[in-house]
Amino acid sequence: MAASRRPAQYAPGIARKEAIMDAAFVAFGTVGYWNTTMKQIADDCDVTRAGLLHHFPTKEALLEAVLGRRDELNRARFFQDSWPPGRDGRHFLIRMVRLVLANAAQPGIINLFAVLSAEAIAPNHPAHSYFAHRYERTKGWIREAFLDLRAKGQLRPGVDVGTIDIDLVSLLDGLQVQYLYWPDQVDMAERFRAALAQVLVEPLTDEEIEADAASSTPEVEPA
Amino acid sequence: MAASRRPAQYAPGIARKEAIMDAAFVAFGTVGYWNTTMKQIADDCDVTRAGLLHHFPTKEALLEAVLGRRDELNRARFFQDSWPPGRDGRHFLIRMVRLVLANAAQPGIINLFAVLSAEAIAPNHPAHSYFAHRYERTKGWIREAFLDLRAKGQLRPGVDVGTIDIDLVSLLDGLQVQYLYWPDQVDMAERFRAALAQVLVEPLTDEEIEADAASSTPEVEPA
Repeated sequence: MAASRRPAQYAPGIARKEAIMDAAFVAFGTVGYWNTTMKQIADDCDVTRAGLLHHFPTKEALLEAVLGRRDELNRARFFQDSWPPGRDGRHFLIRMVRLVLANAAQPGIINLFAVLSAEAIAPNHPAHSYFAHRYERTKGWIREAFLDLRAKGQLRPGVDVGTIDIDLVSLLDGLQVQYLYWPDQVDMAERFRAALAQVLVEPLTDEEIEADAASSTPEVEPA
Repeated sequence: MAASRRPAQYAPGIARKEAIMDAAFVAFGTVGYWNTTMKQIADDCDVTRAGLLHHFPTKEALLEAVLGRRDELNRARFFQDSWPPGRDGRHFLIRMVRLVLANAAQPGIINLFAVLSAEAIAPNHPAHSYFAHRYERTKGWIREAFLDLRAKGQLRPGVDVGTIDIDLVSLLDGLQVQYLYWPDQVDMAERFRAALAQVLVEPLTDEEIEADAASSTPEVEPA
């Protein structure tokens, strides 16, 4: 469908670049970064090695592009227009639940992140800084959200705002792995909402989540 | 020290086999299974390729041996003598806390498991069944422990014994990754105990954990 729609608008080079990133996405997400070769990616998307190197001179550059595109899509769909600068903690959590729901529908994405975030623990991995920064940013957002919730009296007594970011990010990371092993048995969004229900005075409702989805700008088609 | 103690008791073949497993442990834990070659492992421990193949005819066999040794040590140190058959839920959780403390002292082990458990999501990975089985077993133990705690009136009202296993295993998996990125900022055992404190009527005490460590048989020296 996409190929037949306004083909003149798309330079072949751009389509090829997208095809390369798609192939790299699949390869990195299954066998990891170290074990993926540029030759394999070129073969997978039927591009010559010279064509591949024209767009991405190194495997590192390709990895960076794949991760960057994912973040850009998530920002467009979930966070760009609301955080910052909305800084409403409850709204942020609603968006996180929607992101988890969207990820569950695309196991390839969470597989990519599960494999790469573990590989990238090694300080010499080209995505090490990317993941370290990504964790810091997500945890910073969660802390901001909970400070806002606390200020508005929406947190149960005893909730430790100083560690909730570590706990929630850990839960989400771990849920992703179990979900990939048992997609029919692990409901990531439900488990995440249950964890939030333990700390919020008023648990998030289905209505709030649906209303946010309906009010958002049309979703960008994910990769 | 170990090499000079009763050398006659150790056949050179056994020492070599141990050295191979040590080298494989480090390699699998840093670059993963797919990217480790048998040649690299042979070089790392100064064994010929023929010598390596004598002990481990395939890379799969070597992976199996490395994972099996780890489980055996954990059983000897933490679970063998108490679960089953003790089936005291509180004692099981104390042992889990001690296992988390021991793992924190050996980042190589959690790095190995973080990298391999993510890689092994792929159904064609040779450790896929191993990890699937390992998750099932650990979750089964946690469910048993919480059923026991519930029966003894030691759980707070509202705790869902049907999902606590997923939540706790997810938390522990995710904590390991963050701990490997920021060993100084993430206290895995403290976070795990905080999660348990949310569900137990009486949180685990330092005294209980220390008493269990003191009463255990001398710990096997970990790999």
